[in-house]
Amino acid sequence: MSQPLASLSPRPDGRAPDELRPVSITRGFTKYAEGSVLMEAGGTRVLCTASVTPGVPPFLRGKGEGWVTAEYGMLPRATGTRTDREAAKGKQTGRTQEIQRLIGRSLRAVVDRRKLGEFTIQIDCDVLQADGGTRCASITGAWVALRDAVDKMLREHMIEEDPILAQVSAVSVGMWEGEPVLDFNYIEDSHSDTDMNVVMTSLGGFVEIQGTAEGTPFTEDDLMKLLALAKKGNARLAELQREALAKPL
Amino acid sequence: MSQPLASLSPRPDGRAPDELRPVSITRGFTKYAEGSVLMEAGGTRVLCTASVTPGVPPFLRGKGEGWVTAEYGMLPRATGTRTDREAAKGKQTGRTQEIQRLIGRSLRAVVDRRKLGEFTIQIDCDVLQADGGTRCASITGAWVALRDAVDKMLREHMIEEDPILAQVSAVSVGMWEGEPVLDFNYIEDSHSDTDMNVVMTSLGGFVEIQGTAEGTPFTEDDLMKLLALAKKGNARLAELQREALAKPL
Amino acid sequence: MSQPLASLSPRPDGRAPDELRPVSITRGFTKYAEGSVLMEAGGTRVLCTASVTPGVPPFLRGKGEGWVTAEYGMLPRATGTRTDREAAKGKQTGRTQEIQRLIGRSLRAVVDRRKLGEFTIQIDCDVLQADGGTRCASITGAWVALRDAVDKMLREHMIEEDPILAQVSAVSVGMWEGEPVLDFNYIEDSHSDTDMNVVMTSLGGFVEIQGTAEGTPFTEDDLMKLLALAKKGNARLAELQREALAKPL
Amino acid sequence: MSQPLASLSPRPDGRAPDELRPVSITRGFTKYAEGSVLMEAGGTRVLCTASVTPGVPPFLRGKGEGWVTAEYGMLPRATGTRTDREAAKGKQTGRTQEIQRLIGRSLRAVVDRRKLGEFTIQIDCDVLQADGGTRCASITGAWVALRDAVDKMLREHMIEEDPILAQVSAVSVGMWEGEPVLDFNYIEDSHSDTDMNVVMTSLGGFVEIQGTAEGTPFTEDDLMKLLALAKKGNARLAELQREALAKPL
Amino acid sequence: MSQPLASLSPRPDGRAPDELRPVSITRGFTKYAEGSVLMEAGGTRVLCTASVTPGVPPFLRGKGEGWVTAEYGMLPRATGTRTDREAAKGKQTGRTQEIQRLIGRSLRAVVDRRKLGEFTIQIDCDVLQADGGTRCASITGAWVALRDAVDKMLREHMIEEDPILAQVSAVSVGMWEGEPVLDFNYIEDSHSDTDMNVVMTSLGGFVEIQGTAEGTPFTEDDLMKLLALAKKGNARLAELQREALAKPL
Amino acid sequence: MSQPLASLSPRPDGRAPDELRPVSITRGFTKYAEGSVLMEAGGTRVLCTASVTPGVPPFLRGKGEGWVTAEYGMLPRATGTRTDREAAKGKQTGRTQEIQRLIGRSLRAVVDRRKLGEFTIQIDCDVLQADGGTRCASITGAWVALRDAVDKMLREHMIEEDPILAQVSAVSVGMWEGEPVLDFNYIEDSHSDTDMNVVMTSLGGFVEIQGTAEGTPFTEDDLMKLLALAKKGNARLAELQREALAKPL
Repeated sequence: MSQPLASLSPRPDGRAPDELRPVSITRGFTKYAEGSVLMEAGGTRVLCTASVTPGVPPFLRGKGEGWVTAEYGMLPRATGTRTDREAAKGKQTGRTQEIQRLIGRSLRAVVDRRKLGEFTIQIDCDVLQADGGTRCASITGAWVALRDAVDKMLREHMIEEDPILAQVSAVSVGMWEGEPVLDFNYIEDSHSDTDMNVVMTSLGGFVEIQGTAEGTPFTEDDLMKLLALAKKGNARLAELQREALAKPL
Repeated sequence: MSQPLASLSPRPDGRAPDELRPVSITRGFTKYAEGSVLMEAGGTRVLCTASVTPGVPPFLRGKGEGWVTAEYGMLPRATGTRTDREAAKGKQTGRTQEIQRLIGRSLRAVVDRRKLGEFTIQIDCDVLQADGGTRCASITGAWVALRDAVDKMLREHMIEEDPILAQVSAVSVGMWEGEPVLDFNYIEDSHSDTDMNVVMTSLGGFVEIQGTAEGTPFTEDDLMKLLALAKKGNARLAELQREALAKPL
Repeated sequence: MSQPLASLSPRPDGRAPDELRPVSITRGFTKYAEGSVLMEAGGTRVLCTASVTPGVPPFLRGKGEGWVTAEYGMLPRATGTRTDREAAKGKQTGRTQEIQRLIGRSLRAVVDRRKLGEFTIQIDCDVLQADGGTRCASITGAWVALRDAVDKMLREHMIEEDPILAQVSAVSVGMWEGEPVLDFNYIEDSHSDTDMNVVMTSLGGFVEIQGTAEGTPFTEDDLMKLLALAKKGNARLAELQREALAKPL
Repeated sequence: MSQPLASLSPRPDGRAPDELRPVSITRGFTKYAEGSVLMEAGGTRVLCTASVTPGVPPFLRGKGEGWVTAEYGMLPRATGTRTDREAAKGKQTGRTQEIQRLIGRSLRAVVDRRKLGEFTIQIDCDVLQADGGTRCASITGAWVALRDAVDKMLREHMIEEDPILAQVSAVSVGMWEGEPVLDFNYIEDSHSDTDMNVVMTSLGGFVEIQGTAEGTPFTEDDLMKLLALAKKGNARLAELQREALAKPL
Repeated sequence: MSQPLASLSPRPDGRAPDELRPVSITRGFTKYAEGSVLMEAGGTRVLCTASVTPGVPPFLRGKGEGWVTAEYGMLPRATGTRTDREAAKGKQTGRTQEIQRLIGRSLRAVVDRRKLGEFTIQIDCDVLQADGGTRCASITGAWVALRDAVDKMLREHMIEEDPILAQVSAVSVGMWEGEPVLDFNYIEDSHSDTDMNVVMTSLGGFVEIQGTAEGTPFTEDDLMKLLALAKKGNARLAELQREALAKPL
Repeated sequence: MSQPLASLSPRPDGRAPDELRPVSITRGFTKYAEGSVLMEAGGTRVLCTASVTPGVPPFLRGKGEGWVTAEYGMLPRATGTRTDREAAKGKQTGRTQEIQRLIGRSLRAVVDRRKLGEFTIQIDCDVLQADGGTRCASITGAWVALRDAVDKMLREHMIEEDPILAQVSAVSVGMWEGEPVLDFNYIEDSHSDTDMNVVMTSLGGFVEIQGTAEGTPFTEDDLMKLLALAKKGNARLAELQREALAKPL
């Protein structure tokens, strides 16, 4: 898996099957949030902020644990044709809720909430431009925003021990023209109804696997190949997270 | 995988790691729906109905295709402590929406919608009693209700060709005391935050994989074992679906 | 009124004018609720649960009294054609609210709330199959669930004195082809817009009378005959409640 | 029943048991509505308007019938302590919905909808000041507004035949200190949980009977006395409606 | 500006350009509210009530200050054609919210909230009949209701010092056929999309200026003339407020 | 007014009283929208997009006119402390609705809707970072997005004549320490409750004036000075719009 697979059916943007889109991780993108990251993966751009507030939701009060939760949104014209504004319609779609629950679970999987103390870290992932893979970009960017927010808490002695256990990132894989490929863009995503989002830690563990084959089901063999691609993609994203954090804020 | 694994840490209800709970599939449970199935898996009981209506949603009009969609609900006292009624609160939770979207996608994966014509089949899965695995029981039972509804359509010449391509069923697998086990009940589910719902066709294809490890991530080895258990469980559920359908309605 | 009236215009299901549909009252239908009753009256089937929780609503706090309240719902395919799910629409209809308020008032009329202490008993009536008279079946079944829940509270010494003052049951009466008849089924109900729901205690008192004549108004004479039928029907329902309670749970 | 009953336990405002509060019916209270009536009964003041619009709701289209429907509201400070504004809370209470459904049914009971043609008459009853009996005052006043609106339709040849079959009015009766009395005011209403709203036509028929005994159930004897009081009250209200209509608008 | 401008293009109701419509201010219009005023300006009639309640909203707790806030509504048939009831639709329009925020701010501008103590005065402005200028009539009438409510608080020693700093009133001005005129009625308002609402204190200060020119923009010269008309109109309204208060309640 | 006023009480960021914050107008900020502008004024950053869709709202159908409308939102962490997400709360605040109505009216004031044909241009203004003056920045930026979208329509012959009549821009002015100043930032805004938003065309006409003095009312003299500052500010903003448009997209 260490070199590009032979590409039988070329991808719309000419990438190799195991090739990520260009990634850019800009920290400190807005000024107020404790962590603020513009995550770009190809044409997908997500603003991920981490907001620290004292206190926890009622179900956790008095347990000495913290909480990490997430909300997700898309600007109405993040997409090729305008999408109705959820605030105007008065409710979030099922898709939005599903994604924000996924982001929250993924980040909590790498946080020791007892070390966080009774603080809540609220992650907001807002898609400025959508070109496929927004939930994966949200998770990958949100972890960097979380890292920055936690570092600020440590510097300011709000907490004493680092509650973050590992990095977490996410990438999509799917079947393109019958072949497994890494990191669908929008065109690929809209022409395939068989894809999988894989969330992994930097230690190689699987946090979430969400595979959907509304069209042709995955065979067991496909599944193994897709998981291998996802491992490769997430390993690269973890490197990119570290590179972004190595730069001064 | 053809015989029970040695059980190092016994399961709360004494089952072997690869043992399903007792399953009962009662067809014709209520009288109006075109398909109506009471699906029971251990203490979990879900009423699955399939309602056939002419016409399709706006995004499909004029394409000559049908639609299959699902809604899910739990009666307030299906659970150990009463859950608020969603109709009274005025909205469905994110969990409910996630589940109903999953049920709909799983069934659509085994339906050739062109053969369904411009009909909508609305699946309703209502949990009368919840003891773990309600989304999997919903999918497994809903497929039987769908089968009955489609058979009625064929008998009444509403459609001429069978649009159902295969059976579909779902089962949960998860890590119990560090060991992979099949078909969590509520006690197991609530003491583990690492489980996976696997939806498969009777042809052995994977339709949906939703694995979540909010606690310890899955290793690749766990993942392979969990998938093997899920294959075994779904193969047995497909047999049970066929047995139920073999009886007169 | 002790023998069947001569039936001039036969009823759709051949019953005598003063004849109830077959009734079945199954206690312990689900396992978690303190009281759980499947109430069947002809083709109508309602699952009635009673859930006991400590505490009372804000307007009663500190008064040493308890509270009994009810919610009502219909599964979407409880009816001949599918009804929209209220949870998905985001609100309960006026009809639903009217019925659940009626159920709550009817039960409170036979409870001495001072003897209940600061507990709330939440009744849920969910219609699995609707064939006319669902609100009356809900009240009659809910009282049995309430009785079981209160007996459990007494056995477990949550309360010391029985707060239930009498049985309560309900039955519909209406004008069918110009004649007063007892216990409309769905066909009768949908062909008449003149009916009355009568809630009575086992001591013969009237708790609620809701008569509606959207078509031809009731004459005073009709009214007297309808009330007489209702007395007869409720007396029989009270017997059936006692018989159900006489069996071991 | 033709002369005041001996009053054993005097009523808070000194009325005889069978005495209505002073009634005032002001037609043409606002200028736009086709019928606009300020209905006053004691301290209760309700503005009832009837608005005529072409067309009917979807379920009636093409049947050649009209529709009459009603909405009800209370101004926030119509009551002794301010009530939350329903528009600001974003929903109507169950009580509001119950009342507006009652008003609509009561008026439809005296309208031959085939003679109304495909018009909708929308009744709005808005309580400016509440002192008990607002739903009864709404019905009684709304009928006068309906009469004025229909007269206007006849004058303008929108319809050719009068669709109104009879007058309709409503009055409350209840048990005050163990005695049946007519037309509760707010103090009586709030100290009794046993009352009945009786809607009758001017021809003596009963349209709606809604009796509630959340406290002590009604005996059959009480019921007969209450119905007799209601007949008397409604007969007087029908006279007052005719007197109001006899004056020039 | 002390005498009527020459009217080149006559106004629909024949008024001079600087002439207010007839105003009537009726105090004590309903009986429960601490202040209750029927404000009439031409065909516009608004019921303005002021309700005093102990306590303040959370953001002010413990600061020793009071709060004044407002809600606004229109009865459905206050207008020429019926408007949907906001309570039935489940939300207030943007227009309603804009107006009620304006009323609240205008009144707070003349209240020293420290002298009000921890009380909330809730203003409700409900339009019974709309003929243009409802937001201005609401402010002008609400101030009189506020004055009555505060006087009652002073008489009952709920507060010791008068928190009201000045009178406040509002009037609309706009361009009619190219000429600046005072106090648009509905016909003028609906034929012009260039108007301005001006809220002033009795001391001559400007509290709110909301000018809108969706059609032809205002020139600087127009603006000066409109402000002059508004000053004149508000001075007259302040006189009328004082006259109303001079009468016994 | 052509040179800075002597600054008696220095502004928090050292600006002269008549000095705008640094402005940056970036066209083509996102790739899908027909017009997409990142408008920055000091620390305020608003993404303004213009989306062109065929068709108009129902009230305009068949009139041959187009429509321009706007929606406004703030990302949750656009502010110093996190604001609740409107989509999650299920409704837009009154403030949001007020602002989006203002943006829509301001743009429509400079569009000849007959020349736009039956197209709707939907403006979305989403605040990425808020530092005062977000509604003014939204209007100024939205006009540039509108200009780009209309130019695209002209280039693609969707319309033949330019419907844009003039530029439109907006700026805030207010009283800072008793002195009139131009273009409040957040600190100034939050320490003053006396400010005015002034929307003007590039031809010098006033489109909207929204002045609010919740604290000390404006004198007539203040008002004149504030209007003069606003004229100066808007003239400069119009220049900056032209400069931005002069650059290649």
